[in-house]
Amino acid sequence: MIGELALDSAAQRVGDGVHEIVLSDRWGLLDGRLNGGYQLSVALRALAAEIPLPDPVVASASYLRPAWPGPARVLTEVVRAGRRLATGTARLVQAGPDGDEREVLRLEATFADLAASPADPVDRTAPPDLPPPEECRTFGGTEAPPDGATVGQRIRYGVRELPGWVRGEPSGDPVAEFRFAFADGSDATLLDLAFVVDGAAPVVLELGRGSSTAQLTVHLREHPAPGPLVCRTVTNHLAHGLHDEDVEVWDSRGVLVAQSRQLALLL
Amino acid sequence: MIGELALDSAAQRVGDGVHEIVLSDRWGLLDGRLNGGYQLSVALRALAAEIPLPDPVVASASYLRPAWPGPARVLTEVVRAGRRLATGTARLVQAGPDGDEREVLRLEATFADLAASPADPVDRTAPPDLPPPEECRTFGGTEAPPDGATVGQRIRYGVRELPGWVRGEPSGDPVAEFRFAFADGSDATLLDLAFVVDGAAPVVLELGRGSSTAQLTVHLREHPAPGPLVCRTVTNHLAHGLHDEDVEVWDSRGVLVAQSRQLALLL
Repeated sequence: MIGELALDSAAQRVGDGVHEIVLSDRWGLLDGRLNGGYQLSVALRALAAEIPLPDPVVASASYLRPAWPGPARVLTEVVRAGRRLATGTARLVQAGPDGDEREVLRLEATFADLAASPADPVDRTAPPDLPPPEECRTFGGTEAPPDGATVGQRIRYGVRELPGWVRGEPSGDPVAEFRFAFADGSDATLLDLAFVVDGAAPVVLELGRGSSTAQLTVHLREHPAPGPLVCRTVTNHLAHGLHDEDVEVWDSRGVLVAQSRQLALLL
Repeated sequence: MIGELALDSAAQRVGDGVHEIVLSDRWGLLDGRLNGGYQLSVALRALAAEIPLPDPVVASASYLRPAWPGPARVLTEVVRAGRRLATGTARLVQAGPDGDEREVLRLEATFADLAASPADPVDRTAPPDLPPPEECRTFGGTEAPPDGATVGQRIRYGVRELPGWVRGEPSGDPVAEFRFAFADGSDATLLDLAFVVDGAAPVVLELGRGSSTAQLTVHLREHPAPGPLVCRTVTNHLAHGLHDEDVEVWDSRGVLVAQSRQLALLL
């Protein structure tokens, strides 16, 4: 089953390194701007079509301007294609209010072939200890409020208890541990993980603050096994109107599949 | 006092977004290739000269090919200059064995003006508990072996005890906590921190493995106070011949000044 994220982020290749897409309003934030993880998915999928190795292993993106539903293009460049690693860039461009095309996201990503070498893992991380899915409180998905933030309708979160900010009582502790599943029932792919790490609300909401992503780097470590993912999100540091957010993602086997860090503006 | 890192990484602007430099052999690894943090410093300093905001706050670099001592150029592009943030790219290019110029590093960085807003910090990190500098064991600097790895002569490390890999007995635990000072006695600047996070030997040496940086992202959070820095380096995950390395850097006041994560190839 191809997930709705893959369908909504599949640009069409129309020329050498040029890809066209109509960005979907199904991945929007409260004001209609598009979620950063969705933008990243669009750019990374287009780049993956150009790179001779199959698996993105690291992707970093600078968020330059808001992206909106509607026509956009992804312009890709293969920077270096080696035997073990291949690197390229992708620029997501979209017409602004004056009709002129401008860059909204710039991505740099490196690909490898994970199947070409044994996993042979050493892992010092541990997933959070969450109740089984059937005992979790859930929010999002069909239960999400039919407000402007359509991205919340695409995902079902499973938690021990509802986050403070959801209840209107920010906890003061910028940490979240939750299960993550696409609401359409599809399983996340390796590439989808680039969305997952920016697919949940920022945990600075627990400090009563809003947030807008400036830069995000994600490491994609392993193809996830089917089933819901487990995530931990933490903000460790705020200063000068900026904050970090780290996300770790484990699959249903408890294997670490992705890690990310972003720098964001406090709103 | 201008440090030798600033002197050795200062490219000369020769045209619109074009900078020339002779890369110094003082920042070399065992085989003469140049340290990744030094390359990053060169590219970031050149970009800083073009960007209208003073302080780099996040920089991410893809390491495409080895860089060697000798002539090189940095080609910069200002991608977007906003009020709070400005973003640009820099490409470090150098002639290969056939004389053709090729890209060795591609950098993307975002700048802000830290002085324009109060620090107002929230910090969940804590520096490692190290003995005072005078009670630390030191290595590197003038004590560094006069082998090919000249970068080790530029830095003095202060540690509780010498690392296992230095003694020829890898500990099996890929973690390091140490004081960091430039051997010339200069104090690290905000920009120097982009070197510091790749200025120490990789902690996978404690697993008996070598490492080569593929991608590095550093968050630069605060101008460091004078005096030695305190660093913690940890590798949390290895798989498929790749590993991460996280570095945190605190200044002499105990203020978190930088955080980085890199993805590297196991050798």
